[in-house]
Amino acid sequence: MKLARLGPLGEERPVVLDGGKTYDLGSVTADIDGAFLASGGLDTVRTALAAGELPELEGAGAQRVGAPIARPSAVVCVGMNYAAHAAESGAQPPERPILFLKTPNTVSGPDDAVTIPPGSERTDWEVELAVVIGTRAAYLGSPAESMAHVAGFALGNDVSERQHQLVDSGGQWSKGKCAPGFNPLGPWLVTPDEVEHGALRLRSRVNGEPRQDSSTADLVFGVEHLVYDISRYLTLEPGDVIMTGTPEGVALSGRFPYLAPGDVVELEIEGLGRQRQEYVAFGDGLG
Amino acid sequence: MKLARLGPLGEERPVVLDGGKTYDLGSVTADIDGAFLASGGLDTVRTALAAGELPELEGAGAQRVGAPIARPSAVVCVGMNYAAHAAESGAQPPERPILFLKTPNTVSGPDDAVTIPPGSERTDWEVELAVVIGTRAAYLGSPAESMAHVAGFALGNDVSERQHQLVDSGGQWSKGKCAPGFNPLGPWLVTPDEVEHGALRLRSRVNGEPRQDSSTADLVFGVEHLVYDISRYLTLEPGDVIMTGTPEGVALSGRFPYLAPGDVVELEIEGLGRQRQEYVAFGDGLG
Repeated sequence: MKLARLGPLGEERPVVLDGGKTYDLGSVTADIDGAFLASGGLDTVRTALAAGELPELEGAGAQRVGAPIARPSAVVCVGMNYAAHAAESGAQPPERPILFLKTPNTVSGPDDAVTIPPGSERTDWEVELAVVIGTRAAYLGSPAESMAHVAGFALGNDVSERQHQLVDSGGQWSKGKCAPGFNPLGPWLVTPDEVEHGALRLRSRVNGEPRQDSSTADLVFGVEHLVYDISRYLTLEPGDVIMTGTPEGVALSGRFPYLAPGDVVELEIEGLGRQRQEYVAFGDGLG
Repeated sequence: MKLARLGPLGEERPVVLDGGKTYDLGSVTADIDGAFLASGGLDTVRTALAAGELPELEGAGAQRVGAPIARPSAVVCVGMNYAAHAAESGAQPPERPILFLKTPNTVSGPDDAVTIPPGSERTDWEVELAVVIGTRAAYLGSPAESMAHVAGFALGNDVSERQHQLVDSGGQWSKGKCAPGFNPLGPWLVTPDEVEHGALRLRSRVNGEPRQDSSTADLVFGVEHLVYDISRYLTLEPGDVIMTGTPEGVALSGRFPYLAPGDVVELEIEGLGRQRQEYVAFGDGLG
């Protein structure tokens, strides 16, 4: 099942996509958020869809696509979680998951323009598999318990400003990860039954030229281990987002230029859809 | 003006304290949160209080005290912001503010028991001046603009697990900062007109013995500079909390033992009230 949120920023309506059609979820829930997921909302949608109780939404294709989850309480990111990306960043693969947080107000729609922060010369892309939590997860006993807490998966871009992340920061990465619009998410929340999350091709392109092209099979720590490990250090709430890390092929490697106004970044994960963002100067668009 | 939230966890009621009495704010707002602050709620309370329109709440002293702000979207922490604490941590004072984030679900009442994470041998205290944001702050032009975005101040404890923060983490501190109950806040939200925020004595004690005893006059970066600097890297939302850093006198220094079950931590900031937390083993109390 693929869920989405369509409409202007702050006024998105929940929908479900099925068989090439878009169905309005307004009769089931006001939004796709933690409370909806924790209350068994996905089962309700599945039942209503099968029973033909949901009205089709006309003109869905013309609407803006929002992030597929509203108001996460936390966005937990995993660093250096592909060996080749750790190497291009000048680091060894970690022995344990490295965590950092983004502020939830970074989450934006998959195709929203992204403002390059004023003065920035090192804005970078990071295609990532995102995990959306369905039920509270605290102190899980083993990775085998993890998937019971996962509502689904999405495509994410962990946009990063490397000067802010690595130099201005004193070494704590969040300072370069939280600018407005720095976490495009979506287009869809896809339920686990439709996703072979351990073997997904993930790619990014800048102005049509290939950058990242890897597979989640190369994750140092896979989804089950991440949810388990994170739950031992913090409580994951329904609707929270885990960004599982990015593979090699970012500008930080020195092989590609950083983003400039007018650049277009496209990202794709097999089965999770595509994103396309134009990067704009501060003062234009969202800035 | 001193605002607070009283009642069982998740059912706190907003109140205002004045002249030794406690007044119910239920007629003004359902809660003290970002939406309340952003809509000019503090002015509404001030007017209602002056007009004698608020009913007194009987039996307030017998109720649990909650955190004075509900549901921050972000808790932004500042590291190494007192020179003597940087030194006891083996670091130099930073050239720019060092930021890291705690998940908002760490925020708890000032006197709630704190669970020591399972297996932890390095749980530590950190008394801090907390700043609560009143209106959205993004890309401020100078520190002079900061105070217009501040709703008030509170006492906070940035509880830390040093093994998780410094060893398990790969160097990204959030992993040791986000365990359940790791951010006792309150008892009060005190408006800026009642707080000389640049000259507040702040202290902590463990089992009655003094630990930290410093002044916010010794902050490397003061409140105005912090709000300005942070706003250049992320958007501060109404209700967000900034923890401004802790002075010397924590267990990480090697001068004091880490916390063990049964220990009692008391914290105080001049004019912002006191906290008293019992630390309990995982499986007892909150665990």
